[in-house]
Amino acid sequence: MTRIVCRQLAPTLADLPGNHRQILRVIAEETSSGADILILPELITSGYVFKSADEVDACAITPADPLAAEWAAAIEGESIVVLGYAERGDDGRFYNGAMLLNANGVLATYRKAHLWDEEKLFFTAGSEPPPVVATRFGWIAVMVCYDFEFPEFPRRVALEGADLIAVPTNWPLVYRPDGERPPEWHLAQAAARVNRVVIACCDRTGTERGQEWTEGTAIFDQFGWPASAAGDGHRAAYEVDLTATRDKSFNPNNDLFGDRRPELYL
Amino acid sequence: MTRIVCRQLAPTLADLPGNHRQILRVIAEETSSGADILILPELITSGYVFKSADEVDACAITPADPLAAEWAAAIEGESIVVLGYAERGDDGRFYNGAMLLNANGVLATYRKAHLWDEEKLFFTAGSEPPPVVATRFGWIAVMVCYDFEFPEFPRRVALEGADLIAVPTNWPLVYRPDGERPPEWHLAQAAARVNRVVIACCDRTGTERGQEWTEGTAIFDQFGWPASAAGDGHRAAYEVDLTATRDKSFNPNNDLFGDRRPELYL
Repeated sequence: MTRIVCRQLAPTLADLPGNHRQILRVIAEETSSGADILILPELITSGYVFKSADEVDACAITPADPLAAEWAAAIEGESIVVLGYAERGDDGRFYNGAMLLNANGVLATYRKAHLWDEEKLFFTAGSEPPPVVATRFGWIAVMVCYDFEFPEFPRRVALEGADLIAVPTNWPLVYRPDGERPPEWHLAQAAARVNRVVIACCDRTGTERGQEWTEGTAIFDQFGWPASAAGDGHRAAYEVDLTATRDKSFNPNNDLFGDRRPELYL
Repeated sequence: MTRIVCRQLAPTLADLPGNHRQILRVIAEETSSGADILILPELITSGYVFKSADEVDACAITPADPLAAEWAAAIEGESIVVLGYAERGDDGRFYNGAMLLNANGVLATYRKAHLWDEEKLFFTAGSEPPPVVATRFGWIAVMVCYDFEFPEFPRRVALEGADLIAVPTNWPLVYRPDGERPPEWHLAQAAARVNRVVIACCDRTGTERGQEWTEGTAIFDQFGWPASAAGDGHRAAYEVDLTATRDKSFNPNNDLFGDRRPELYL
């Protein structure tokens, strides 16, 4: 069984050293107390509500930055950490990035391909699909927030063998009717169910320049049911056999992927 | 405003004349009392739980059958009717079919492309994508039950301009945790939201050879919220401006379709 943990944190806007210390502390805490896969929010190094490119510049790091090496060094045992960060590209551009690390260092990086709202003012969209990374716990795909609202993305990584989709996210609080779940949950529930993969969404907290967040951190099982939600507790945790996601059958006649009709899809 | 009505009916297994009379009655009833678009369940001419090809054979009709002309003739005014039926193909095969009619006759037909479980024993899968039909009320796409669990299908018809996806369905009752909605609702909610289209799912009722149904008939607005559900009443109805689905923007920086990255999709 693999223990997946999401920690719903608040970064401090434009405070890279302070955010770095929080990341180090949480990685050490969680990986030393049983988290096999720890997921932190989008842009947890920098905060989100930027007003200028200078603010991004002051926080952006490359994946080769010594800070990332410190995060890796803080990982206890064989655990995996996924987190979102503001990336400084070799091309001088900024990306809304994510990385997957183990104790040896950075195993994979990703640049958000679907940018939300004013992110477009500060970040360049990624031009590569999400990575699907072999780990001792199973195949882990990484995408960021708005990315997974395009059903083609969960589908792609599931077809490539992902058992778990790790989604660092910052969900701005949006309208929902009384009694309804966050709309992003419906999208995650559907993406989990139609692909039979586990999806772990790590949202943030902490009002920033007046922006409130959904605080909707949750882990969905491979049938689309919410398995754990942070609620008021800032933490979702779920223990699962990720290899169970590989059986895509419903019955002797139906298989989720075998039943696809790609020749009829655009 | 366009009034969409789904009638959650029970067909009688293998009783084409009896089912025909029910269809005639319901079409007349609903189109004379305000339904602009009336949707009936999958295989409403025949029932679902077949045990032999002979049973299908006894009920199957072509779209040119005089019965379909009678259904058209029963339509009051300019209304549209969508229903599922067992189709006898010119090739001698049987299809899990759907048709869209107005008072002038059959405007479009469709053959279910993703077959569920033992349907595969009796029906041939369709080889054409779902139709997207221009009507006075807007563009209506038609697909059947399991079809819409492949997110590529709602996406396809939405990209082709569908305002409404009409889904005749027979949802066999499946497990869901206490307090949860039918899993098909999550898929419909997500498909509606990520494509910003209205989705109307017309389920059936009436236990058949021991098979129970979800009785989950519901209409979802273009943001994915349930707008009307049959519940115990066997009828969902929702009045909506279908042209409102054509604005795919979230804000000045984001558009659901404009933000797609097809070069990154499989």
